[in-house]
Amino acid sequence: MYEVTTIRCVPQFSHTIEPSAFEDTAEMGDRRHKTTNAAGLTREDGGRRTEDEDSGRGGVTGDPVQPAEPPKGGQQMEAPTIAQRDALNKRESGVSASSPMRLRMEQFIKENQEKIVKALEGVDGTRFKTDKWDRPSGGGGITCVLQDGNVFEKAGVNTSVVYGTLPRAAISKMRVNHKALDPDVESLEFFAAGLSLVLHPINPMVPTVHLNYRYFETANSDGSTNAWWFGGGTDLTPSYLFDEDVIAFHRKIKDACDAHDKNYYPRFKQWCDDYFYVKHRGETRGVGGIFFDDLDETEKDQESLFSFVQSCLGAFLPSYLPIVQKRKDLPYSDREKQWQQLRRGRYVEFNLVHDRGTAFGLNTPGARIESILMSLPLTARWQYQHEPEKGSREERLVNVLKKPVDWV
Amino acid sequence: MYEVTTIRCVPQFSHTIEPSAFEDTAEMGDRRHKTTNAAGLTREDGGRRTEDEDSGRGGVTGDPVQPAEPPKGGQQMEAPTIAQRDALNKRESGVSASSPMRLRMEQFIKENQEKIVKALEGVDGTRFKTDKWDRPSGGGGITCVLQDGNVFEKAGVNTSVVYGTLPRAAISKMRVNHKALDPDVESLEFFAAGLSLVLHPINPMVPTVHLNYRYFETANSDGSTNAWWFGGGTDLTPSYLFDEDVIAFHRKIKDACDAHDKNYYPRFKQWCDDYFYVKHRGETRGVGGIFFDDLDETEKDQESLFSFVQSCLGAFLPSYLPIVQKRKDLPYSDREKQWQQLRRGRYVEFNLVHDRGTAFGLNTPGARIESILMSLPLTARWQYQHEPEKGSREERLVNVLKKPVDWV
Repeated sequence: MYEVTTIRCVPQFSHTIEPSAFEDTAEMGDRRHKTTNAAGLTREDGGRRTEDEDSGRGGVTGDPVQPAEPPKGGQQMEAPTIAQRDALNKRESGVSASSPMRLRMEQFIKENQEKIVKALEGVDGTRFKTDKWDRPSGGGGITCVLQDGNVFEKAGVNTSVVYGTLPRAAISKMRVNHKALDPDVESLEFFAAGLSLVLHPINPMVPTVHLNYRYFETANSDGSTNAWWFGGGTDLTPSYLFDEDVIAFHRKIKDACDAHDKNYYPRFKQWCDDYFYVKHRGETRGVGGIFFDDLDETEKDQESLFSFVQSCLGAFLPSYLPIVQKRKDLPYSDREKQWQQLRRGRYVEFNLVHDRGTAFGLNTPGARIESILMSLPLTARWQYQHEPEKGSREERLVNVLKKPVDWV
Repeated sequence: MYEVTTIRCVPQFSHTIEPSAFEDTAEMGDRRHKTTNAAGLTREDGGRRTEDEDSGRGGVTGDPVQPAEPPKGGQQMEAPTIAQRDALNKRESGVSASSPMRLRMEQFIKENQEKIVKALEGVDGTRFKTDKWDRPSGGGGITCVLQDGNVFEKAGVNTSVVYGTLPRAAISKMRVNHKALDPDVESLEFFAAGLSLVLHPINPMVPTVHLNYRYFETANSDGSTNAWWFGGGTDLTPSYLFDEDVIAFHRKIKDACDAHDKNYYPRFKQWCDDYFYVKHRGETRGVGGIFFDDLDETEKDQESLFSFVQSCLGAFLPSYLPIVQKRKDLPYSDREKQWQQLRRGRYVEFNLVHDRGTAFGLNTPGARIESILMSLPLTARWQYQHEPEKGSREERLVNVLKKPVDWV
C-alpha cells in the first residue's frame, strides 16, 4: 500500500496517528533533529514539548515527524497551534465552504468513509468493526475493518487526521517538490488527512481494489497556510481478467479526470502503472487506475484540485460496486481460488518489498503496525515455480501485467 | 532468508547462479563499474569479456557482481581463471584434503545436500524435485524442492557454486570486514559456495527450520587465495513451543560449537537473535540457534573454521529430525493450524522486509526470483489485530519471541 496509517502509542491518550500523506517524508534524513515549535521556540525557551522530547510520556525516539502536543496545563503559548485554531473554528462556526481546507478535507473524507462503509456493508451483509483513535493534540483516526465477510475476505476503510511538526531536515527534503516551503525556519507545523481503503474479496472473479486520497499542508507561525498538496489514486488488482470490468473501471475514473483536465487521466494512469510495478517480477501489481502526488499550486489552484480529488473519490463506488455485483456469485473452482491466493502472494510482495509508504511506516518507531499491514490479504500463497498453463486465462492476466494496456 | 540464491538468465547456457554468500555485496555501490579481468585486462586489451559487457549474449546490466566467462573459441588467456584451474584440478586429481578449499567446500555441501535430501525424503515419504543449473564458466546450482508432501508443506534444499569477478567498488566495501583484500586492483576473481535450506512442515507442532552455510574467496591473478571467509547458521521457528525440543536443538548446536571454541555458541547465539529480529513487530522470527559471518584468518585458520562449519552442518539432522519424528503425528485443531498460518505471515514479513540477502537478491537484475523466494511458506495469513488469548500457548510463544531465552 502506498498510504501509511500509523498510530503511535501514547499510553494515557490512546494512540496518535501518522497519516497517509507521510510517504513524502519517508527519507527525511536526520530523524533526531531537535524539534522546535512553529514559533521557533525550543523546549528550553519555554515552548511546548513534543512527545519525542518528553520521554516520561512514553515518547518515541527517532521518529521522522513530531506530533503536535497541547500546552501543559497553565502554560501559555505565544501563538495557538493550527490544531487549536481548527478546534476553535469547528466549535464556533462549523465547517463550510469558507473554512480552511484542512477542515473541509477532514469532513470530506469522513463523510466518504461512512458512505463507502455503508455501501460495502450493504453488499456484504456483514458489519465493519470500527476502531476510533483520538490524538491528544486534535485529529485522530477511524479504522473500519471487515474480516471473513460474505463477499469480502478482508476489507479496510481508514481515515486519519494528523497535526504535527516537521523538523528542518524534513522541510529541506520536501522542498524538492514544493518550493513554497520556507527553507529558513527551524520547523513547521503540518496537517495531513487521508482516506485509504483496500478490499480483498473472497470470489477470485472479483478484483481487489485499493484507493487513497490525501491532503497535506504546512502552516506559518501565524497559522496561515505555507505549502499544501494533494495526492492519491485508485487501482484494481484482478486475479481473473474481465476486460469489460477493467474498461468500465478505467472509464469511470477517466470521466472523473476529464471533467477537470483532459491531461489528467493519461498522466496519472501512467504514473499508476509506474508506481505499482513489482520490479523483481517484471509485472505491475494489477491493471492500474490512476496515481498522483504533490499536486499543488504549480498544478492548479487549491479549489480546483480539491474539486478534482472529490470527483476521484466520488467515482469510487460507481467504478467498483458494479463489478462486485456482477461477479460475486460466479462459480469458481479450487484451482481458481488457488490462483487468487498466488496473486495475493504477489500483492504481499509489492506491499512489503516495494511500497514506499509501507516501508516508511514499518521503519517508524511506535507505528501502529496493524493499521499499516491492514492492506495485506487474509491469506496468500507461494508455490515454487508455478507457471500458468499456455493459453489459459491465468497466462493472459500475467501477459497484461507484464505489458500494461490502455483500457480506454 | 539470509542467503541469496539467484540465477541469472543466459539464454543459450541455461542459467548462472549467484550464491548465498552474496549478501555481503548487497550495497556494493557502483553497479555499473567497468569490469576488467583478474590480470587487469579490459575487454579492449584483449581480456575475456564479461556477460555485462557482451550484451549480445543476453547480458544483465546493473548487476553487482560479474559472472566469470570462459574465453571465446581460439582466444588465448594470459592466465587461466580459478574456474579453469579448479576444473582442471578436479579432472586430473579429484578432490582431497590437499585440494583448494573451494573444491573441498563444493564437495562438502553437495554431499550434505544429498544426505539431507535423502533423510527428509525418508521422513516425508515424498521425493524432492531437483533442478540443476550449470554455469558456462564452471560451477552451478542444485535446487531441491518438495511441495505438498506428507510431513512438509514446502521444503527447499539448495546448493550453489559461483565463479565471478568483483569490481573495485565491491572490493572497497568488503575491505571493511576483510583487510586481506587488496585495495589496489581494479577487480578480483571470486568464488562462492553455499548450502541453504528452509523446511516448512504441515503440522503446526513441528517447527520451521532454516540453515545456511557458505564459503567466499577472492583470488590473486596467479590463482592463489587473496581473502576468504565462512558464514552461516541454523535457526528454528516454532508456532508452538515445546521447551524440550528447543533445548535439545540448541544443545546439539552448542555441542558442535563447543568442540571448536567455548565462546562460539554464546557469541553466535546472540548474533542469531540480533539478526533474525522482526523490528517492526518487536519480536524475533523464531527461537534462534546460531548465526555468524565473515569468519576469516583474524578469527582462526582456514582448516579450523572449515572443520567448525562441518560440525555445524553435521549437527543439523541430529538437531532437527528427532523433533520432526516426535511431533509430526500430533493431533492439532483448525485453530492451531490458523495460528501457524499467522506465524507464517510473520516469517514472510521478516524475509521480505528485513532480510538483507532477500533484499539484495530481489534488487539484482536477472536474479532467479523463484530460488530466492523458495524460502517463503506455501501459505500464510494476516488477520487484523489478532491477539493470542491470555495465558494461552500462543501468548507464551510471543512472550519468548519478545525476550529471547537462554535455552542451554
